[in-house]
Amino acid sequence: MSLILFQRKEIEMVPVRISNRAHNTPPSPIRKLAHLAAKAKKSGTHVYHLNIGQPDIESPPEFFEGLRAFNQKVVAYEQSQGYEGLSIAWSNYINKTLQINTRPEQFLITVGASEALVFLFMTCCDPGDEIIIFDPTYANYLGFAAIAGVQLVPVLSNMENNFALPARSEIAQGITNRTRAILLCNPNNPTGTVYSREEISFLHELCEEHNLFLIVDETYREFVYDELKPLSILHLVPKSPRVIVVDSLSKRFSLCGARIGCLLTCNDEVLAMTLKIAQARLAAPTIDQFASAYMLEHIKDDYLENTRKEFQSRRDALYNALKEIPDVAVHKPKGAFYTVAHLPVSDAEAFAAFLLADFSYKNQTTFIAPASGFYMQNLQGIQKARFAFVLKKSEIEAAIEALAAGLDQYLRRRARN
Amino acid sequence: MSLILFQRKEIEMVPVRISNRAHNTPPSPIRKLAHLAAKAKKSGTHVYHLNIGQPDIESPPEFFEGLRAFNQKVVAYEQSQGYEGLSIAWSNYINKTLQINTRPEQFLITVGASEALVFLFMTCCDPGDEIIIFDPTYANYLGFAAIAGVQLVPVLSNMENNFALPARSEIAQGITNRTRAILLCNPNNPTGTVYSREEISFLHELCEEHNLFLIVDETYREFVYDELKPLSILHLVPKSPRVIVVDSLSKRFSLCGARIGCLLTCNDEVLAMTLKIAQARLAAPTIDQFASAYMLEHIKDDYLENTRKEFQSRRDALYNALKEIPDVAVHKPKGAFYTVAHLPVSDAEAFAAFLLADFSYKNQTTFIAPASGFYMQNLQGIQKARFAFVLKKSEIEAAIEALAAGLDQYLRRRARN
Repeated sequence: MSLILFQRKEIEMVPVRISNRAHNTPPSPIRKLAHLAAKAKKSGTHVYHLNIGQPDIESPPEFFEGLRAFNQKVVAYEQSQGYEGLSIAWSNYINKTLQINTRPEQFLITVGASEALVFLFMTCCDPGDEIIIFDPTYANYLGFAAIAGVQLVPVLSNMENNFALPARSEIAQGITNRTRAILLCNPNNPTGTVYSREEISFLHELCEEHNLFLIVDETYREFVYDELKPLSILHLVPKSPRVIVVDSLSKRFSLCGARIGCLLTCNDEVLAMTLKIAQARLAAPTIDQFASAYMLEHIKDDYLENTRKEFQSRRDALYNALKEIPDVAVHKPKGAFYTVAHLPVSDAEAFAAFLLADFSYKNQTTFIAPASGFYMQNLQGIQKARFAFVLKKSEIEAAIEALAAGLDQYLRRRARN
Repeated sequence: MSLILFQRKEIEMVPVRISNRAHNTPPSPIRKLAHLAAKAKKSGTHVYHLNIGQPDIESPPEFFEGLRAFNQKVVAYEQSQGYEGLSIAWSNYINKTLQINTRPEQFLITVGASEALVFLFMTCCDPGDEIIIFDPTYANYLGFAAIAGVQLVPVLSNMENNFALPARSEIAQGITNRTRAILLCNPNNPTGTVYSREEISFLHELCEEHNLFLIVDETYREFVYDELKPLSILHLVPKSPRVIVVDSLSKRFSLCGARIGCLLTCNDEVLAMTLKIAQARLAAPTIDQFASAYMLEHIKDDYLENTRKEFQSRRDALYNALKEIPDVAVHKPKGAFYTVAHLPVSDAEAFAAFLLADFSYKNQTTFIAPASGFYMQNLQGIQKARFAFVLKKSEIEAAIEALAAGLDQYLRRRARN
């Protein structure tokens, strides 16, 4: 008995040391409150997930046909740069939908856009080097930066201005001799902002001036509303060696779980250097690549257009419902499937937790992502939340009805205390 | 015209800067000569691939049944820690085959063992921290270290001693105040060495003494020959908080392209910290996880035993053929599906390139992996090569026949010059 105690004590006294890097990696603000949602569900409450960009749209039947068409007997490694058939299909798809010219050799297939971004952070930056981002930003960029030891430098965009790109002079102020790249997500996650041709254009000029990479995450490229047309950085500067496009099938084709992304550049050195990093992890999943290539080759033209229309109507439903709630300020997004709203609470995370843990309305509640995790300057987001309009219109309406009731109850309680 | 020249010149004068990290990431020694192999094939020569651990064994039919059993309409994100059904199935599989007790909560599912190792390098080490490895080592560990900014410290194992673990004192000499972990691959890639209970045991003691993590890559655990039984570190110290097992379905079930690996530990802090890093990349592929779980639940008991027997017979074929070649020294591996041989050439990489680029025998040639890329102390491997016995016995025999003829021709040519 004393021996057992002694051994336990020894282990407690000298725990094996975990890295500062791991300690400093931020938890995902999207998944942070998931345990409260799980609890609410267990107690029988229906939870509307507006917290995560997981669309409920059915994946294209052509993807499942592709799965069934895989008839190799051995599920072998693919090439590190990706399945050639997928690079060809993706290049054709982009050339057709955007009316531009890319070649399959410009593609490196990755495990989601996430992996492409981690690779690029490593290829463009040594530890301590800097990348300019726009605040609020896709929260996982912070995680990639922690992984790669890269310093993200935020330049603030403002809700009052529909989160448009900050002025050129403000961005230039963020550039130091350690800046290696500017990273833009267009259309934007979390704001839903679609940047104009002029904005993208001056950003590229700024990169030329300071000899920086311009990394454009175009995961949501085709999700633009109100008569806008998809605009790629490649429309503007198709041959720029400083431009790297990150792309993904996850959202566009409701294939988040297939984990198929890519990077695309005409800079051969970037491709060659990134390939060495890609070789260390061997390859992206073989069957998902095969099924994705099959899908891109066979998909019907109307799939994307129908999806786009559906999201536009959901956007309208969310925007209209949110702006009816007293003291809620909301920006009408032109793209992607997110918006950021300002709530009349002092701490949106405490309110989000309240909705899941201490509230239900008609046996339902709503899961929203507190925006502080999307801001590097956290305080800028403390009264805001990100809403993903990834559910059916009727569900979005019910979700916002529940949220409004929750907000009312939350504010009354606070007033009483 | 002059404008175009000016622009080109400008681009050439100020290329966008690629990181030192990317420049310093070593290319894969396994895939390095692939372009020569591709050329040989184009010219009609059959190339025997003994360079890469890609088995030709058919993947289990239960995996393909699992693919067909996936009937969700949306290919959605899985949880960041992995599909719960897969953790349960994997835990059950390990408990059954190894007669030990693991729980599903101890697993974190990753995109191959590769991703598990990158995560662990990051969780255990800050940039500049050190991990002890044994030279020769699995070449991709060098890539993971470059990605994570970790310093690998090699302790040499010797072919004369069948690449057994170095003496405790030699290993202890490599430990500094920045050492955070010892990494062992058992059975070993590239040597095929299977470490004894005593060797693993003293390694764990050494880790206790210096408060280090012990990471054991057990990708090849079930591939042991000559009456040996699979031995996991968990047989010895099932509850040690410093032990982390890395595992993979790639080799065991000939599923390299499914990209399904895991890490397994009873250290909750390691799991929680690694999960944050895992959240940044969202999740491993959904369908591959589902099919893998289905396979582990339904696979027939004899699949692995038949595979093991097949590899043992290939091992014998390779070993017997190699030791007949004059001046070739070869070690008889007890596990995995690799061996390292010493060749009577001054530079095994030049010889490997010769086999692909300047030689054929009966219209065939052999692709071997030069061993210098598997040694951190490169010179130790300059006369050696790694052979993977992943082809059918008859093909291995033909491959070594071609290699022997190539060696003879190569040595004659060198003697003439």
